Amino acid sequence: MIYADNAATTKMSKTAISTMVSLMEDTYGNPSSLYEFGQKAKEVLEKAREDIAGSIGATAREIIFTSGGSEADNQAIISAAKAGEKNGKKHIVSTAFEHHAVLHTLKKLEAEGFEITLLDVHSNGIVSAEEVENAIREDTALVTVMYVNNEIGTIQPIREIGAVCRKHGVLFHTDAVQAVGHISVNVVEDNIDLLSASGHKFHGPKGTGFLYARKGIRLLPLIEGGAQERGRRAGTENVPGIAAMAAALKEAVSNLDSYKAKLTPVRDKIIAGLREIAHSDLNGDEERRVPGNISFCFEGIEGESLLLLLDDKGIAASSGSACTSGSLDPSHVLLAIGRVHDVAHGSLRLSIGEDISDEEADFIVNAVKEVVEYLRGFSPVWRDLQAGKGKFIL
Amino acid sequence: MIYADNAATTKMSKTAISTMVSLMEDTYGNPSSLYEFGQKAKEVLEKAREDIAGSIGATAREIIFTSGGSEADNQAIISAAKAGEKNGKKHIVSTAFEHHAVLHTLKKLEAEGFEITLLDVHSNGIVSAEEVENAIREDTALVTVMYVNNEIGTIQPIREIGAVCRKHGVLFHTDAVQAVGHISVNVVEDNIDLLSASGHKFHGPKGTGFLYARKGIRLLPLIEGGAQERGRRAGTENVPGIAAMAAALKEAVSNLDSYKAKLTPVRDKIIAGLREIAHSDLNGDEERRVPGNISFCFEGIEGESLLLLLDDKGIAASSGSACTSGSLDPSHVLLAIGRVHDVAHGSLRLSIGEDISDEEADFIVNAVKEVVEYLRGFSPVWRDLQAGKGKFIL
Repeated sequence: MIYADNAATTKMSKTAISTMVSLMEDTYGNPSSLYEFGQKAKEVLEKAREDIAGSIGATAREIIFTSGGSEADNQAIISAAKAGEKNGKKHIVSTAFEHHAVLHTLKKLEAEGFEITLLDVHSNGIVSAEEVENAIREDTALVTVMYVNNEIGTIQPIREIGAVCRKHGVLFHTDAVQAVGHISVNVVEDNIDLLSASGHKFHGPKGTGFLYARKGIRLLPLIEGGAQERGRRAGTENVPGIAAMAAALKEAVSNLDSYKAKLTPVRDKIIAGLREIAHSDLNGDEERRVPGNISFCFEGIEGESLLLLLDDKGIAASSGSACTSGSLDPSHVLLAIGRVHDVAHGSLRLSIGEDISDEEADFIVNAVKEVVEYLRGFSPVWRDLQAGKGKFIL
Repeated sequence: MIYADNAATTKMSKTAISTMVSLMEDTYGNPSSLYEFGQKAKEVLEKAREDIAGSIGATAREIIFTSGGSEADNQAIISAAKAGEKNGKKHIVSTAFEHHAVLHTLKKLEAEGFEITLLDVHSNGIVSAEEVENAIREDTALVTVMYVNNEIGTIQPIREIGAVCRKHGVLFHTDAVQAVGHISVNVVEDNIDLLSASGHKFHGPKGTGFLYARKGIRLLPLIEGGAQERGRRAGTENVPGIAAMAAALKEAVSNLDSYKAKLTPVRDKIIAGLREIAHSDLNGDEERRVPGNISFCFEGIEGESLLLLLDDKGIAASSGSACTSGSLDPSHVLLAIGRVHDVAHGSLRLSIGEDISDEEADFIVNAVKEVVEYLRGFSPVWRDLQAGKGKFIL
C-alpha cells in the first residue's frame, strides 16, 4: 500500500512507539502520586512539556496536554470567548475554511449570542492579514485562523495576522494541527496567543494533543475534576502518550529541512503529472502549501469513486477531510475557495509522507490518470460536457 | 517495589500492551477514511465497542469513547442537566464524597442556576437508596452517585438507587471508574442510565475511557468538531488505545471471580493486621468494599509523612485520591464519613493488585506498624494525647 493520507493520520515513528512501550511497561505510576514511582512519571511528563514547548518556541508552563487537536481547539476558543464576554466583547473573526472543531465551536458560541465574521479565503486558499484587520472591531474578542488548511494544504500568513491582532489588542488563536511538525512554527515570532496541535498528525500517538496558551492567558477547563495541568485540564495524564508525542515532535522538528527538501520536488512532480489530466485544477496556492499536500479537482467525476478505485490499486488517499467523510455534502473548504458543487465533488487529496519513493510518485500519477479517465467514461455529466451540453468549468 | 496504589492507576496488562503495539504498527489508519486500510481501523474500533458494551451488559450503540473517566463524568452530567433544564428541571441529587470530576461539574452547574443536593454518606461510607428517594423532587433532573468510592472503596447500592430513579422518572448516572473491571457491573440489572469508566483503572491505557448512555438518552458533545462517535464526541478516535482498553476490560471481567477470591482474604488479612495498631480505624464498611481496597486512619500522624516513609521501604501507597495529592486540605471523602480534620490527615489507602503475595501483605502490615510508631514518636499531637491532654478519637 502507498499511504498518501498523512493529513488524516500518520504512522507513529519508531521512536514514538518505543518511548510509549517502555513507559507503559516501566513507568506506569500516576504523576500526581507522591512516592518516587509516581514522581518518575511526573518527571517524564514535565520533560515532555519542555520538549514540546521548545519545539514551538514556547515555555513549558505555556503548554497543557489534551486528548487531541479538537479538544485543544474547543478549549482555546471557548476560553478566549468567555474572557472577551466579561469585557463586553462578543465578536469573533475566523475564516470560512476552518476545521469543524473550530467552526462548530463558533456555531455553539453564536447560539449563545456571539457574532461571528467568517472571512473569505479567496481562490488561492489564503486569508489576507489586511482583511483580518478590517474585520476587527472594538468588540472583537478573538481572531482564530488555521495555520495550514487540512484539505488543500495552504499556509496562512500567520505572522502577519498575529501582528495585526497584537496591534489591536485582540487574542489570536491558530489551529496548527496541520502545521506543527510539518513546517517551522514559532509562537513568539508568529505573534500567536493560543495554538492547538495534535500528536497523530506528526507521527505521534492518537489520543494526544496540546494547547499552547501564552503566559497570562487564562484557560477555562473543558474537563473539570482533579487539579492536573494546574487546574486547566482534569484527568490522569496520559504520560506514555504524551512522552511519545514529544518524541515524535522533537524528531519531526529536527528533520524539517530534510523533510521539505525531500517532499517538495516529489509533491511538485505529482502536481505536474496530474495537471496533464484535462479539465483538472490544483486546489490552493501552488507555492504557499505544505510540502506533502496535493489537492486536485477533476471535472465530471465523483471523488468517492475515485478513492475506492485508487484503493483497489493500493493507494490510500482522501477526497478531503477524514472527519467528514461519509457525508454527501461537498467539502466546505473547496466551496470556500470558490469551487462549484459539481467540481468540489470531484476532489482528491494526496498527503504524502517522507518515505515516498520516486517510483511510488509515478505510480500515483499514472493510477489517478487511469482512474479519472475510466470514471469519466461512465459519467453522464462528462458525456454531456463532451457533447457540448453545458460548459467546462476547469 | 510493592505497588499498592491500583486505585490511582494500574499497570497495563500484557494483552493490552501487545494489542496496542500491534495496532500502532499495523493498523494506524483513520477509521473515518473510506479506503480499506481506514476501514480496518474502523472494524477494530467497532469490535472494541461491542466488547466493552458486552462487559457491562450494554449494546454497542450505547457506548461512546472518551479520553478518560473525568471527561465521561463531565459529559454525562452536563448532558443530563441540560436535558432537564429544557423541561424546567434544575435540581440534581448527588453525594458528598463523589470524585472531583463530578463535584466540580456540579459546582459549575450550580453557578448556572442549578440546585444541588449532596447526600450524607454516613460513617460507613454508604449512601442510602431511601435517602436518595427522599431527596428526589418534581424538578430533579439527575441523580449521580458513584459506584465505588475511590478513596475508601465502599460499594454503593447502585441497583436500589437506580430502581428509585426509574420509579420517579429521573435520570441516573454513576461514576463507575473504580467499579468497572473490579466488581460485576450490569447497566440493565443495575438500572443505570449513564455510566463513566476509565481504561487505566483496570489495566488498560491512560488517556482512554468510555461513557455508556442508555438508548434514547441524548448526549451533548463536550468536544465539537468532526462527526466521530455519531456526533457525540469529535476527534480522531484513539483506535490502539480503545482496543487495548477493550482487551484489558474483557480480561478483567472474565477474571472477576478469581480476582475477588484471591484479593479478599489478602485484603482482610491486611485490615486485621493494621487494626492491631492502637488508635487506628478502618475507613468505610468492612464488607461492602471492593476486593483491593484498604483505607485506614491513624491518630496522631500525618499521612504524607507516612507515605514517604513507606516509599523508602519500597511500598507505593496513597493517602487518598491521587488527583488531589499535593493539596493540604484533608480528603473531602474522609470528612464526609465523619472523620475530623486531624484524624483525616492521618490516612492511608492501600489498593492492592492481583499479583500481591502473602509475604508482601505481611511486609506491608509490618512496615505500616513500624512507620506509624516511628512517626508517633515525633508527633506533638500524639505526645499530648499520651499525656492525657485532649482525648483520643479513634
